[in-house]
Order: sequence, then structure tokens, then C-alpha cells
Amino acid sequence: MDSTIKSLLSLFKGKNKYLHYYLAGFVDGEGSFSVAIIRHPDQKFGWMINPCFQVYQHKNYREILELYQYVFKTGKIYRKSGTHNVLNYSIDSRRNLLEKVIPFFDKYPLITKRDAYKKFRFIVKEMEEKKHLTKKGFDKLVTIAYSMNQQGKGRKYSLEYILSEPKLNNKV
Amino acid sequence: MDSTIKSLLSLFKGKNKYLHYYLAGFVDGEGSFSVAIIRHPDQKFGWMINPCFQVYQHKNYREILELYQYVFKTGKIYRKSGTHNVLNYSIDSRRNLLEKVIPFFDKYPLITKRDAYKKFRFIVKEMEEKKHLTKKGFDKLVTIAYSMNQQGKGRKYSLEYILSEPKLNNKV
Repeated sequence: MDSTIKSLLSLFKGKNKYLHYYLAGFVDGEGSFSVAIIRHPDQKFGWMINPCFQVYQHKNYREILELYQYVFKTGKIYRKSGTHNVLNYSIDSRRNLLEKVIPFFDKYPLITKRDAYKKFRFIVKEMEEKKHLTKKGFDKLVTIAYSMNQQGKGRKYSLEYILSEPKLNNKV
Repeated sequence: MDSTIKSLLSLFKGKNKYLHYYLAGFVDGEGSFSVAIIRHPDQKFGWMINPCFQVYQHKNYREILELYQYVFKTGKIYRKSGTHNVLNYSIDSRRNLLEKVIPFFDKYPLITKRDAYKKFRFIVKEMEEKKHLTKKGFDKLVTIAYSMNQQGKGRKYSLEYILSEPKLNNKV
């Protein structure tokens, strides 16, 4: 084990539970549960639904992102595009979201991000059951995604545009 | 007890310890330990040293600030000046910093704000021992304050200006 991680762990008196509550609190401050809707002609309705768990931090405090990596045993740390000093820890594989991220936040509570997490969790679980492969399910999940994190503010495409007939989309 | 607070507490299985680790993590994300140096002609060297613990949050999540208020049994919540949507939970009385905030963060660890907290703690304790009332002590504490939170970036006055002779300052 890395010595930085070891010294951080010692702050929690060897109790993973304490560390995990701390990490939940930190995610409520600096984390995000988001669901990107990405143009993708090969996907059934012309769009890919991409749930992603992220934690941001200034590069001076990379160690805390490494602590998440240590706890989740997965996830990448990279420089956030368009910024010089912000690092991004990110997990977007559905397997890891289902097996690592969701069980963690089912156990350790969120407060400010609780609603976003609940929607995120619902979307990931529905996708696991392939609900997004019917038009009805696809529309439902995209609509929920657009209701998260300030109601789709800052999204490139309108909800109506994404939900419009796939053939129409594919022509554009 | 307020019903919102009651329902938040239930997330932590009735264990204050879990709640406190969570709150420490949240402060590492959204809190600040700062020491303002404020012009004040009545003070010995023309300046007041004002340590302040704060937590910020969007007004939609006021409940988490109320949770700090519940835990610390003190502190004010108000709208951050110049912003519409951000609330600020703040403790700046030296008594409360010494008796509530410092014992809390001595026990529950910080990671990203650990260095700022250590300097903050040092300044508050030195002030309690009246060290800021000698020119040497004053200069030392102001210098430490200016080394916190991005080395005094965004400060109105330069460190040199504040440390210059008090009589000179008072004339300006």
C-alpha cells in the first residue's frame, strides 16, 4: 500500500466505517452523479445513456482522489478538460457502478446529493435490466436524467430533441 | 428537535460518530477555515485578526447547514453577500471556535483542509494567549494567516502594508 494512503487511513483509527462516512460527506461536497446523453448513431435510438460517478479536486489534493481509488478498487484520475488545476476521479463502467458505487452509497448516506443519487441509481439499475432498449424505457430514463442536477441546465440538446423520433435524429 | 434534523440524523443509525465523520468530509469539500485581517483603528496595531469557520451551500440544501448548527449548538446561517443562492454557516466567536470547532476537528480528520485547519487552530490558540497584542506576535499571526488559502490571493491589503508601522497605517 502506498505510504500516502497509509497515512490518510491512519486518520480514521483503522476503522473503514469512519473513513467511509467521511468519504460520503466529501462526495456530498465535491462529487457528482451525472447521466450524460451522448449522440451515438450506432445505439438503438441514436443516443447513448452514460451514467458517471465523479469526484473533483484541485491537483494539490490528489491524495483524496487516490483514497477513493483505494476504496473502490477502480476508477481513473485525470485532468478535467478545459482546466489546468482540477483533477477528476471518475467511474463510468456499469459493472463498477453496480457492484461498487451503488452498494457504497446505499450504505453511507448522502444529504445534498441524495436526490441526484436516487435517480442515478434508478437509471443504472434499469439499464442493467435493459429497459433503455425499448422506446418507452429510453424516454423515461432520459427524462429522469434531464431532471437531475439543475434540470438539464447546460445540456447541449433539448429533451424534446432527444425524445423525437430516432429516424429523424439519425438524418440530422 | 426539528423534524428535518431528526430525519437527517436517522441516516447515521443514531451514531454521532458516523455523523461527525460525514460532517468532517463535507467540510473538506465545502467548508473553510479563514483568518480575515480587517482594518480597525481601535485595535492595537490598527488591524483586527478575525478567524472564522464557514460552510457554504446552495440555499436548496439549507438543511445540511442546520445540521452543523445542531451539532455545534452555535453559528449563524445567512445569505453570502453578493450571491443570490449561496448560504453561509459561520462561527467566528473565539469562545465557540476554542470550545466547539477546534475540539471537533482535532477529533474528526480533515484531508484537503488539514493544513489550513492547523494554521487556523494555531492562530486562534495564540490569540487566546494574547500573543497578537505584541508586535512580534501580531506579525507572526498575520504572516501565517497570509500563508493560508492560496497564499493571501484575493486579499485587499498586502502583507507588507499590514506589517508596516502601525502609526503609518493609522494615518492613511
